[in-house]
Amino acid sequence: MANDFRSPRDHHWSPAEKKIARTAFDTALAREKAAARRSVEEMLRQSEDPDQLWEIHRFLDEKRRDLHEKYDFRYSVLTRVFRRLVNEGWLGPADLSGLGTDKLALILGDLTSLRP
Amino acid sequence: MANDFRSPRDHHWSPAEKKIARTAFDTALAREKAAARRSVEEMLRQSEDPDQLWEIHRFLDEKRRDLHEKYDFRYSVLTRVFRRLVNEGWLGPADLSGLGTDKLALILGDLTSLRP
Repeated sequence: MANDFRSPRDHHWSPAEKKIARTAFDTALAREKAAARRSVEEMLRQSEDPDQLWEIHRFLDEKRRDLHEKYDFRYSVLTRVFRRLVNEGWLGPADLSGLGTDKLALILGDLTSLRP
Repeated sequence: MANDFRSPRDHHWSPAEKKIARTAFDTALAREKAAARRSVEEMLRQSEDPDQLWEIHRFLDEKRRDLHEKYDFRYSVLTRVFRRLVNEGWLGPADLSGLGTDKLALILGDLTSLRP
């Protein structure tokens, strides 16, 4: 675990890791968009109030800004992005399987210490 | 019809006319919001594409700006507002029944010439 203290900027991402990272990234984004869609459908079901539309508008405004800020695929910040996505429940360890232990340690943090 | 050539700014709105105007205004706005809601529901039905959410966001953005610009209850511009709402189908002559002929002439334009 000597690599733990390297900056994420110093990490080398192999072609295989880049592919895993891209898939995990896209998976998380798709899950989050699908959840946002379910929220909008639920908001429509919850209320017949015509002004519920503006609630939906506000929700989508925030969601759009949130996703734009959060989903940053630069390799220099990617372990931090993945850590946040794991913490928020959009990714699980299985989605990241195949990444090097240096990256998994940063992404999963204490979770790795629970493994055998 | 001597009043036809007065500026709308010069119109006097009686208390009864103000009440009719307020009801017509609110009715048109409610109809338009209800139609916007049906559009959003239809957009959700039309496509499972997660990015359909951003189409909905864009639609609501425009609708919000559109309504904000269009629904102006100042008496000085109200005949013009009502004329537009009639042209767009959000109000019919029945909704304006009880307004003075000076105002109806401006709002309904050629429609009034069709009346007996």
